[in-house]
Amino acid sequence: MAESRRSDSAGEASRQRQFLNVVSRQEATSRFRQHLHLEPVGAEDVSLSEARHRVLAEDIRSPVDVPAFDRSNVDGFAMVAADTFGAQEEAPVRVRPAGEVIAPGVFPETAVRHGQAVAIATGGMLPRGADCVVMIEHTDLVEQDGETWVEISRSAVPGQFVTFAGTDVANGEAVAWTGQLLSSREIGVLAAIGRERVRVYRRPRVAVISTGDEIVPPGQPLPTGCVYDSNAAILSAAVEELGGEPVPHGSIPDNEEELQQALEKAMTCDVVVLSGGTSKGAGDLSYRVVERLGNPGIVAHGVALKPGKPVCLAVTDGKPVVILPGFPTSAIFTFHEFVAPVIRALAGLPIEERPSIKATLPVRVNSDRGRLEYLLVGLVGGGNQLAAYPMGKGSGSVTTFSLADGFIRIDEQTEIVEPGAEVTVTLLDREMKPADLVVIGSHCVGLDTILGRLRREGLTIKTMHVGSLAGLNAARRGECDLAGMHLLDPGTGEYNRPFVTDELELVQGYRRLQCLVFRPGDGRFESKPPVEAVKRALADSDCMMINRNSGSGTRALIDRLLEDAGASRDQPPPGYGIQAKSHNAVAAAVRQGRADWGVAIDRVANDYGLAATPLQDEHYDFVIPRERRGRPAVQRFRELLDSPAVKQELSSLGFRPAAAQ
Amino acid sequence: MAESRRSDSAGEASRQRQFLNVVSRQEATSRFRQHLHLEPVGAEDVSLSEARHRVLAEDIRSPVDVPAFDRSNVDGFAMVAADTFGAQEEAPVRVRPAGEVIAPGVFPETAVRHGQAVAIATGGMLPRGADCVVMIEHTDLVEQDGETWVEISRSAVPGQFVTFAGTDVANGEAVAWTGQLLSSREIGVLAAIGRERVRVYRRPRVAVISTGDEIVPPGQPLPTGCVYDSNAAILSAAVEELGGEPVPHGSIPDNEEELQQALEKAMTCDVVVLSGGTSKGAGDLSYRVVERLGNPGIVAHGVALKPGKPVCLAVTDGKPVVILPGFPTSAIFTFHEFVAPVIRALAGLPIEERPSIKATLPVRVNSDRGRLEYLLVGLVGGGNQLAAYPMGKGSGSVTTFSLADGFIRIDEQTEIVEPGAEVTVTLLDREMKPADLVVIGSHCVGLDTILGRLRREGLTIKTMHVGSLAGLNAARRGECDLAGMHLLDPGTGEYNRPFVTDELELVQGYRRLQCLVFRPGDGRFESKPPVEAVKRALADSDCMMINRNSGSGTRALIDRLLEDAGASRDQPPPGYGIQAKSHNAVAAAVRQGRADWGVAIDRVANDYGLAATPLQDEHYDFVIPRERRGRPAVQRFRELLDSPAVKQELSSLGFRPAAAQ
Repeated sequence: MAESRRSDSAGEASRQRQFLNVVSRQEATSRFRQHLHLEPVGAEDVSLSEARHRVLAEDIRSPVDVPAFDRSNVDGFAMVAADTFGAQEEAPVRVRPAGEVIAPGVFPETAVRHGQAVAIATGGMLPRGADCVVMIEHTDLVEQDGETWVEISRSAVPGQFVTFAGTDVANGEAVAWTGQLLSSREIGVLAAIGRERVRVYRRPRVAVISTGDEIVPPGQPLPTGCVYDSNAAILSAAVEELGGEPVPHGSIPDNEEELQQALEKAMTCDVVVLSGGTSKGAGDLSYRVVERLGNPGIVAHGVALKPGKPVCLAVTDGKPVVILPGFPTSAIFTFHEFVAPVIRALAGLPIEERPSIKATLPVRVNSDRGRLEYLLVGLVGGGNQLAAYPMGKGSGSVTTFSLADGFIRIDEQTEIVEPGAEVTVTLLDREMKPADLVVIGSHCVGLDTILGRLRREGLTIKTMHVGSLAGLNAARRGECDLAGMHLLDPGTGEYNRPFVTDELELVQGYRRLQCLVFRPGDGRFESKPPVEAVKRALADSDCMMINRNSGSGTRALIDRLLEDAGASRDQPPPGYGIQAKSHNAVAAAVRQGRADWGVAIDRVANDYGLAATPLQDEHYDFVIPRERRGRPAVQRFRELLDSPAVKQELSSLGFRPAAAQ
Repeated sequence: MAESRRSDSAGEASRQRQFLNVVSRQEATSRFRQHLHLEPVGAEDVSLSEARHRVLAEDIRSPVDVPAFDRSNVDGFAMVAADTFGAQEEAPVRVRPAGEVIAPGVFPETAVRHGQAVAIATGGMLPRGADCVVMIEHTDLVEQDGETWVEISRSAVPGQFVTFAGTDVANGEAVAWTGQLLSSREIGVLAAIGRERVRVYRRPRVAVISTGDEIVPPGQPLPTGCVYDSNAAILSAAVEELGGEPVPHGSIPDNEEELQQALEKAMTCDVVVLSGGTSKGAGDLSYRVVERLGNPGIVAHGVALKPGKPVCLAVTDGKPVVILPGFPTSAIFTFHEFVAPVIRALAGLPIEERPSIKATLPVRVNSDRGRLEYLLVGLVGGGNQLAAYPMGKGSGSVTTFSLADGFIRIDEQTEIVEPGAEVTVTLLDREMKPADLVVIGSHCVGLDTILGRLRREGLTIKTMHVGSLAGLNAARRGECDLAGMHLLDPGTGEYNRPFVTDELELVQGYRRLQCLVFRPGDGRFESKPPVEAVKRALADSDCMMINRNSGSGTRALIDRLLEDAGASRDQPPPGYGIQAKSHNAVAAAVRQGRADWGVAIDRVANDYGLAATPLQDEHYDFVIPRERRGRPAVQRFRELLDSPAVKQELSSLGFRPAAAQ
C-alpha cells in the first residue's frame, strides 16, 4: 500500500509535468487578456462621505455657479467705488448708510446708489448698484446734527473684496471626469456644487481561495508539518490596495469535490484567485477543477518566470480564474504580474507604473537560463551609490516580499550577473525612503531589543540578517551603519577585534553563551563536558548532528569542537551537511528529533525547552564605519547600548555585559 | 429698527476685532501643543482583515518558526547528499525507496539512512537523516529482479532544495513594531506567524461641525445668497486620509444655544473642529461658545497667517477644539497647519513632511507685510524649468485647493515677489505627476467638451483659466501645450491671427456668438440692434451694466460697443467697475437683477434663461507652441478637433465651425 502510493505519487508528478507547456510572460499575458473585457465591471451611486478612494463613473458639470452670487469677502460696507475716490485718513469721504445689514444667506432688497453704503457681512450678497466693499476697519460711524454718516478713510477700486458669481465654478463647467480617483480635494469641490451622491465604478469582487491539506488559518494551533495561510491575507489586502473588494473563501483541503464546490461559489465574483498549497500535487488538483471550465478555459499553464513558473491562467465567459503557486513570494509576484492589472482595469483605474532606480549589485547572482527572473532586493546606500542586496530567502519566504525595497529583472539569456553590475531596481513602494539606521550582519535577539527601542522612538531601521562575515564586508564597503558580529579568530582565540580594519570602529556589545544543545534526558550528552559528549555522539552512527552555515560565527565553533573531539574531516558525522541558518533552526531540528545535537546560544535553547551545556562565552560586538559614526541614529544606538535600562533588559534575556576594557 | 441693527452689527464687528490678538504661527503652535497630549488616544484589537492602513500598538514577536520544520521546496526524493556524489546522466546512482510519500502537513515517521530515499512532495517535512532533496526530474524508478530502485542522475549538495526551520522567521524574532503602518506586505507576515488579531491604535474621532445660517448641506435646494457646505465634506475626507475617524455633526445655524448643544455633543470626540460660515459674525458666535471652555480654553485667536488669520485654537482638559475660518481655502489650510499634525499624533502616525520642488514665479505677487502668506500655485513645465502660477481665486475658492499642485511661503517681511523669482513649492500630493496636456488661457464650454473626451481616453490634463492674453503669453513662454483665445485686434478687426508670433502655430477652433444679454421682456433692449440698445441704457441712470475683466476678449468687445454707443471714457456707466471674470458671472448677475445688461456668449445666455441679441461672431482658436506640436496629446487634441463626432457635439452646444481657410 505504502509502496504503491509512493509510485503513484511519483507517476502523478511526472504526468503533471506534461501539462506544463511553458510559454513566455508576454505570450501568457496576451493569451489571457485576449479573452478578458478590461472594462469597469459596473457602476453604483454612493454618498459623498463614502466616495473617497472611489473612481468616478460620470463626468460632473456644475448645476450652479460657485459662488452663486457676487459675494463680499470681508465685513464692511457695499458701495460705489467711484464715491471713495480721494478718500484718506485725514480727509475721509462721507456717505449715507442705507438699508438693513446684509447677512450671509439673505437677499438684499435695496439697491445702492451714489452717495450710499450698505453694511455687509463676510459672505453677504452684494446689493445691486454696489461695485466694491470697503472693510469695516476703514470706516467710521459718525453722528452729526442727528444724522448718521459712514466715513470712508481709504479709497476703493471697483471689485474690491468682491468675488463675482461663478468665479470659482461656473454653471455648466465640468469639475470632475469619468475615471478620476476621488480624494478629499475633489470631494470638497463636489460638495461645493451641491452633489450629495456620485456615480462611481463598482469595486470588482475578487474571490480568494487557499488550497492545501497543510494550510491552517491564522489564529488556530499549528500541527507539525503545517503552515499558516499567509496568502489569503496578503492577497486580500493587496486586492483592497488595488481598488477591489476581496471576498474570502477560506482554506480548502486537497479534496476535489470540496474544491469544485468552492470554485462554483466563487464564480459569483468578478475575478477568482486560487493559491495552491505549497505542494504541486495540490496545484494539480486545482488545475483539474479549473480545467473543466470552458469558453475558453485554461489559456496558459506554465510561464517562463522565476518565481512563478507553475502559474495557471484561465478565462471562462470573460471571467478571469487564476491559480497562483502556493509559495508566498511566487504567489504575490504572479498576482502582481497577471492579476493586479486586471483588477485595476475592472475598477476603472489606470495601470500603475512602478518607479525604478539605479543600483549596484554587490554580490554575484546566478540565474536560470530560459526564464525571466525577478530577484527581490534590499537597497542600502553606499556613498553616492545604492547597493541592491538580493534578499536571498527564496520563493517560500513571506518576509522576503515584506522587507524588500524592490526587484531586478534578469532576462532569459542571462545566467550570471557579476558583482558590481549596474542594475535597475523596480521599487515596490511609490517612494524609496532612506532608513535612519541600516543594520547588516549577524542576527541576535539582544540586538533586536535595542532596535525595538529605537523604532519606538520613531526611527526607521532596515535590518538584513546575512551573518557576521557578510555584515563585516558590508560595513567595510560603507553600506550599513552597524554590523553585529561574533567571529572567532582561530589564530589568536580572540573575538572580532582581529577582523576590524582601519575604516571601522569596534563597539563592544555583550556576551552570549554558546552551548551544546540536546533534548533533556539524552544520556549521550547529559552532564558531560562538550568534547566528551561529542566524542560519544561520533561513536554512535545513529546520532545525528545539525550544522550551521559557513561564514557564521557558530560554524567556526562547531568545526573546532569536532576537531577537538577527533572527528575526521574526510568523513564528517551524520547531519554535518545540514547547514541551518540560525540558532532557532538548530534548536527546532533538535526539538523535533530531526537531529540530536547542535550548537546554539543558551537563550534559544531555553526558548525551545532544550538542555544546554556551556561551550564558549561568545563576544557579540558591533562594527561601525568611521564615516558613519556621526549619524544621529548611530549615536542614539550607542547611548542606548550604554544605558542601564538596556543593560538590564539584555541581562533579563540572558546576555551578560562585556568585560570592562 | 433697521438702522439700529446696522449700527449694532458695525459695533459688534469692531468689538470682535478686539479679541483678535494676532500671534505668529510658531507662537500659536507652541501655545496649542503645550496643552495637548500628543500621544495615541488608545488601542483596540482588530482582525487581520481590518488591519490594513492601521497603526500597530504592539511589538510583535513570532511565536513560531517559519517554516516550522525543514521543508522541501520541490517534488522529489529526500536523501543523504553524500550518496549522490558522482551521479550523472550516463552513470546514475541507485538507492532504495523507503517509507511512505511525505505529503505536506504530515509528520514523517521513518528516518532516512545511507542508501535510502523517501518520496517527498513540495512543502513536505524533511525526514530525519535526509539532508537534501533530489528533484523528481533527476530521478527514475527502475525495477530489477523484482526490486524497485530510485536512480539519481545528478549529484546533490547538502541542503539542496531544503528551507530549514526558522529561516524565514525565527521563533521569538520581532517581525513588526509599535507605530508601524500596516500594508498588505506586513499583513502577509503577520498571517504567516499565525496572528489573526492585532492590537492597533484607535483612530482618533474628530467631530466636524459647520456653522452659519447660509450653509446648506449638499443635495438640498440652494436658496439665493446661500452656499453649499463644502468644508464638512473636505474636512471629513481629510480626517480619514490622516488616519482619523470623522464624526459628522451637521450644519448649525447662527444660534448660540444650538451651537452650544452641538459643541457639548461633540466633546465626546477626541478632537473638535468647527468651521465658521463665511461670516466673521458667525465666527464670533463660535468663539463665544468655545470661550466658555476652561482648562485652559482658548490659547490663540488670530494668527499672522494668510489665509487663515481668524483661526481660533482652544484646548480643554487636553482636548483640542479649533474654530477654522469659514472660507474653504482658509479652512483647509489652517486645518492642515494646526489640526492635521495633532490627528496624526493621536493616531500614532509620524508627521508627514511634504515634498518640495524648485520653480520660477512667472508673474509678480504682492503680499501683506506682517503675515506669513501661503500662496497656492499650479505648476507647469517651461523647458527644463517649472513655472509656478498663483491660482488666484482667493481664500473663498474651493477649486483653488483642489486644482493646485502646491504652495509657496511668502514670509512676513516680503511685500513683493518679482516675476522670475525662484521659489520653493511645497507639493500637496506626494508626487508631482506631469500632465499629458497643459491648457492655459480662456475658458470655453466647447473646449471643455474636447478635453472631456481626452480625459475619458485616459489622458491627464491640467487646465488654468487665466483669460486669452495671459494664455497667449504662457504659450509664448512654452509653459503650456495649448492656449484657447479669442482676442480681437482693434486695428485690423481680425481675431487672434495678428497676435500669433513665430514660435506659435494658430489652430482654427470654432465660432461662438457673443451677444448683448438681458432679462427677457426688458423693453430697453428687446428687438433693438445692440448699439441702439446700449444707447438707451446709457440714457437711463437706473440701468446697470456688468463689465468683464481687462485682458479678456469680451472686454475688448464691450469697450468697442460702449464707444460705438457714444459712452464717455471719463464717466463710465453704472456697473462699468464690476469686472466679472466669466460669461457665467455676467449671466448670473443679469439673471439675479444685480445688473441689467452685459455681454456673453449665446450658449451661456440660454443656460441662464436670458434674452440675447447677436453682437459678434467670435473666433475661438488655439495657439500651440511649435516645439510642442509633436506631443502625442497635442496631436490627439487636433485629431479630435477635426473629427465629425466633435464637430457635431460642438454644433449641438451652439458653436459653429470656423470658415474653411
